Amino acid sequence: MSERIPLAILGATGMVGQRMVQLLQNHPRFEIAALAGSERSAGRPYGEATTWRLPGDMPAGLADMIVRPCTVDGMPAGVRLVLSALPSDIAKVAEPAFRDAGHAVVTNASALRMDPNVPLIVPEVNADHLSLIDRQGPGFVVANPNCCTIPLAMALAPLHERWGVEALTVATYQAVSGAGYPGESAWDMVGSVHPHPGDEEEKLAEEPAKILGTPHAAADFLLSARCVRVPVADGHLLAVHVKLKGNPTISEVDGAMRGWTGKAPPLPSCPTPPLRFTTRRDRPSPRFDVDAGGGMQATIGRLEACPVMGIKFYVLGHNTIRGAAGAAIANAELLDALGRIP
Amino acid sequence: MSERIPLAILGATGMVGQRMVQLLQNHPRFEIAALAGSERSAGRPYGEATTWRLPGDMPAGLADMIVRPCTVDGMPAGVRLVLSALPSDIAKVAEPAFRDAGHAVVTNASALRMDPNVPLIVPEVNADHLSLIDRQGPGFVVANPNCCTIPLAMALAPLHERWGVEALTVATYQAVSGAGYPGESAWDMVGSVHPHPGDEEEKLAEEPAKILGTPHAAADFLLSARCVRVPVADGHLLAVHVKLKGNPTISEVDGAMRGWTGKAPPLPSCPTPPLRFTTRRDRPSPRFDVDAGGGMQATIGRLEACPVMGIKFYVLGHNTIRGAAGAAIANAELLDALGRIP
Amino acid sequence: MSERIPLAILGATGMVGQRMVQLLQNHPRFEIAALAGSERSAGRPYGEATTWRLPGDMPAGLADMIVRPCTVDGMPAGVRLVLSALPSDIAKVAEPAFRDAGHAVVTNASALRMDPNVPLIVPEVNADHLSLIDRQGPGFVVANPNCCTIPLAMALAPLHERWGVEALTVATYQAVSGAGYPGESAWDMVGSVHPHPGDEEEKLAEEPAKILGTPHAAADFLLSARCVRVPVADGHLLAVHVKLKGNPTISEVDGAMRGWTGKAPPLPSCPTPPLRFTTRRDRPSPRFDVDAGGGMQATIGRLEACPVMGIKFYVLGHNTIRGAAGAAIANAELLDALGRIP
Amino acid sequence: MSERIPLAILGATGMVGQRMVQLLQNHPRFEIAALAGSERSAGRPYGEATTWRLPGDMPAGLADMIVRPCTVDGMPAGVRLVLSALPSDIAKVAEPAFRDAGHAVVTNASALRMDPNVPLIVPEVNADHLSLIDRQGPGFVVANPNCCTIPLAMALAPLHERWGVEALTVATYQAVSGAGYPGESAWDMVGSVHPHPGDEEEKLAEEPAKILGTPHAAADFLLSARCVRVPVADGHLLAVHVKLKGNPTISEVDGAMRGWTGKAPPLPSCPTPPLRFTTRRDRPSPRFDVDAGGGMQATIGRLEACPVMGIKFYVLGHNTIRGAAGAAIANAELLDALGRIP
Repeated sequence: MSERIPLAILGATGMVGQRMVQLLQNHPRFEIAALAGSERSAGRPYGEATTWRLPGDMPAGLADMIVRPCTVDGMPAGVRLVLSALPSDIAKVAEPAFRDAGHAVVTNASALRMDPNVPLIVPEVNADHLSLIDRQGPGFVVANPNCCTIPLAMALAPLHERWGVEALTVATYQAVSGAGYPGESAWDMVGSVHPHPGDEEEKLAEEPAKILGTPHAAADFLLSARCVRVPVADGHLLAVHVKLKGNPTISEVDGAMRGWTGKAPPLPSCPTPPLRFTTRRDRPSPRFDVDAGGGMQATIGRLEACPVMGIKFYVLGHNTIRGAAGAAIANAELLDALGRIP
Repeated sequence: MSERIPLAILGATGMVGQRMVQLLQNHPRFEIAALAGSERSAGRPYGEATTWRLPGDMPAGLADMIVRPCTVDGMPAGVRLVLSALPSDIAKVAEPAFRDAGHAVVTNASALRMDPNVPLIVPEVNADHLSLIDRQGPGFVVANPNCCTIPLAMALAPLHERWGVEALTVATYQAVSGAGYPGESAWDMVGSVHPHPGDEEEKLAEEPAKILGTPHAAADFLLSARCVRVPVADGHLLAVHVKLKGNPTISEVDGAMRGWTGKAPPLPSCPTPPLRFTTRRDRPSPRFDVDAGGGMQATIGRLEACPVMGIKFYVLGHNTIRGAAGAAIANAELLDALGRIP
Repeated sequence: MSERIPLAILGATGMVGQRMVQLLQNHPRFEIAALAGSERSAGRPYGEATTWRLPGDMPAGLADMIVRPCTVDGMPAGVRLVLSALPSDIAKVAEPAFRDAGHAVVTNASALRMDPNVPLIVPEVNADHLSLIDRQGPGFVVANPNCCTIPLAMALAPLHERWGVEALTVATYQAVSGAGYPGESAWDMVGSVHPHPGDEEEKLAEEPAKILGTPHAAADFLLSARCVRVPVADGHLLAVHVKLKGNPTISEVDGAMRGWTGKAPPLPSCPTPPLRFTTRRDRPSPRFDVDAGGGMQATIGRLEACPVMGIKFYVLGHNTIRGAAGAAIANAELLDALGRIP
Repeated sequence: MSERIPLAILGATGMVGQRMVQLLQNHPRFEIAALAGSERSAGRPYGEATTWRLPGDMPAGLADMIVRPCTVDGMPAGVRLVLSALPSDIAKVAEPAFRDAGHAVVTNASALRMDPNVPLIVPEVNADHLSLIDRQGPGFVVANPNCCTIPLAMALAPLHERWGVEALTVATYQAVSGAGYPGESAWDMVGSVHPHPGDEEEKLAEEPAKILGTPHAAADFLLSARCVRVPVADGHLLAVHVKLKGNPTISEVDGAMRGWTGKAPPLPSCPTPPLRFTTRRDRPSPRFDVDAGGGMQATIGRLEACPVMGIKFYVLGHNTIRGAAGAAIANAELLDALGRIP
């Protein structure tokens, strides 16, 4: 095997940063060369600066690594690839700085997602949008979408490619890990659900059209979402009603989804096929389906006819793996596969 | 106060039957004259035949009442009103027998809901449909709808009256009490949600049109639902995307909903107005809003514009009170108010 | 009825403060004359300064009341009784200031609980300890114990009075509301439980002995506790193994508990008897038993022989009513009944 | 590698049976030669007879295997080892039949656990008890303990070996998977906990003494337990107060536990060391610690001094892996390692 590429994780102490750390253990192409965090964390050993929030223990060997500041100067020599799990307001400043210094920035933050020069990538869906990085320089930023958008875009991709999506309504059942840590109060979530008070519906209304469009123009379908938090640890379930052009039959739609292999070259973190199907009427269900394909497959269920929109189905994705940390890693793998890491 | 009307509860040992028992404590118009149950329960004291499943204790004074069989002959003299909380397959046989013997049967069972001669009533929405009982005889059956349909119909009523509903997509977040007892397995619901495997979506697709139509013809809108069980004890939340005729503004729709007082005469169990409104972005939420109006008000939240269907909102209702036991009692109160109890 | 006594609530915007507000609606003896909060809240209308966290709506009529600072000078003329729901570190400074200004301070805070001159009162258990207030002056502070201690002390009182407690081990199942708001992270509590990381076990080890002792000397039994947070909204369940002097039989112990009426004079918030009993093997259970007696009764279950300690039982209490807000109100009622409010 | 030993799983369609199936995928020593179930299942393909209840999909290749009856005659030629996940009442008849036919029966059922000739084994704790099988014949039954007993016995073993256990009180926080499927009703468990209504406390009172004693005499310590079900999917947490002979210090106890490697020869399913330690004050917590060592390690936390019993600690174990299916497999591995499989 060729030598592994050193990378830095920005925001390594948070929930998504920890998932990145976890998923990069024994990665065939990347190795963690630096862990960067806030001022409060910088300078301290990772094991001290971080309360490990994921099941199991912090991966061995990282506890003693000194957390660096999230600055270009703070990076070790030779690191040209940074994965960002920064909060959006910090990302907005830090990520352009890394780009301007010539780095490849692969981000999960929302700050730059809708920037027309920043490709918003799900490898299987729109690897070709990566051409946008040539409009940036000297380095570049590649973003992955929101945790709900990713499984939705994966489910829609084969339909949009073949028929074109005209409109859709979406209702979500979102896990608490999507809010980070501490995130949702247990008082609000014990035996209850509630509408997401943030701008989740707005993000979900615009990101899929960017991904499913061309690099230069968003797709022109309409999307309305209702986003609801449910007492689930990991896994966002979406109930989708969608209207396609040409009114295909359920059987045609089913065939298109099952036959879809995506547009990405082979990548270590992306299972083939990208979509998994369940035939049980009470599934997909987060606790039972969320870890499919190491958390990187989206699971489709109950594809059925809908008298209002034409078709309806459920799709489930792991929100902090497929929908965040794993999404960024897959994008980094795509850059690597295409030889675009500086 | 005039003398109270004696009634019998069929299926009194189950979850909905217990709610009927609980809600009828200190009722101004009705008194429980008989509790009827399955063969296994009949002949035993209610306190022995029943494991009380609701919070608190079984109401005092009922533990010693002997459970009767669910037959016309089994009823005490003078009982002409029966509330049915029977399972659908048993209701299908037992309820017509009571009707044929001249009783007023007010049922929560789904067996006869779509019978064209059986009025499917939510008092505030379609009290006028009660005229259908004249087509039955010598007694009659009056049904209330499904636990999701009721809050949905209440929310749609002011909109349908004023503009006409054209189409809607609905996603539900349904409490486990809707499945009765033992109902859902805790293994399936701890930290998880799952699509409702039964025919909930089908019921929800047809009942609202019957209620919002005329006594003799269903309304002709299209409805597609996705029904999902969530780990909540009581309270069904619905996310509704709806297309109205004439494209009213959000402000007009809001005004119509807030101004709606319903079509029912004053009834002991029905608060005025029937709808309650929350202005918080993270509400309605079952644990916090489900008991509004003694569990008989539906709570509306997040009424907003939708680019696909025109408007969207959330509505929450208590599924075993407003959506079941309280719904049947309200229908009995309506019969009483109109002098239709034999 | 005599005129109602005006009182102020310190820390009125927090979880326990809100419970005080809720429980004081229509109180026969007290009326809310002032709501006081942090600097951030002071000067703003209560309805704006407070996000209402309890089920239902903020009581009507309070939304426009201007929040006052938690200072003696900030109080309206004529207020001599203050209920404190302050965080411990703030209480430590603020409560002595009110006492020194001659107020009666009835506190739920832990700051002064173990002060030898501050009576730690559960009215039914040790109303006589109130004599300690004569050692303070010009005003005084009366504290109620921790949310676990209260139901435990209520269950032990009849046993300690009759036989004397020698030692006990306790394991708790504590609701998330005990942590205030936002309190526990939903990520930590969805489908999980965990040891309480704070000093809960220490409080539970020393408070019961103070309460069950004389005003001047703690009882001398040994107590070891394990405190665990569980995904329950309201209601602390305790599993208690206890060794009594003289080895009474289960039947004797059962008789003593059932016959216990407590030492308090009649108080509006304290049901008689203070203990409720369940005979079901799977109870008490928080969702089903927590609201007994308006949340002010403690429920006992499964009193059984224990080969190690002699007897064992479960006790359940509502942690923010009996264990906090209602406890303080009951103590204020006790002061009122004894004519000790200045 | 030597050829793998064929085995049959009795009760293969249930929750524990499914775990056995799952854990035996790619097992180095055993291969599944037969899946046996109830009359209702026998004769049907496993994939049809079984609704797969574990996360993920049924292991590939088993769906078409025809389920056999749980009888000696129903077994394929060459199968001499049977793992039993039968319900206790069926096990009581079926297991002796297999033993009498010369089979090695390794059971998770409780039916024969307290039979003085049946060894009750946790390999790391009392592998030497296996000598009891010589008192059976021609075949034999080896049992594993209850899902709470196993982690408790593992935690006590190093203490009992070194000092001797005198008495203990235990409180459990038990996952719903311990009740099988459908097991607990979601209505009872959503946002609630409740005392275990079955004979769990009795089992937990007698099994540890058998395991920690000699093959022929139980240890003579006293044990009292309180068993409570909590809304957790997998993982039983136990809060233990224990009195040891000789009053060792916490530091000595800690050293003994950490240094303990157990009495078992190296076995594929048993990690070394058997105990894992957490230093966090809010741990062990089921969702975060349950899968340690593939679900086969027990996790110890908060070992602290107790004024009543001397020491206290928490121990957590995976109830359907370490506490059931994995326990039986480990016992089979022990038989294999000692050359005792016929």
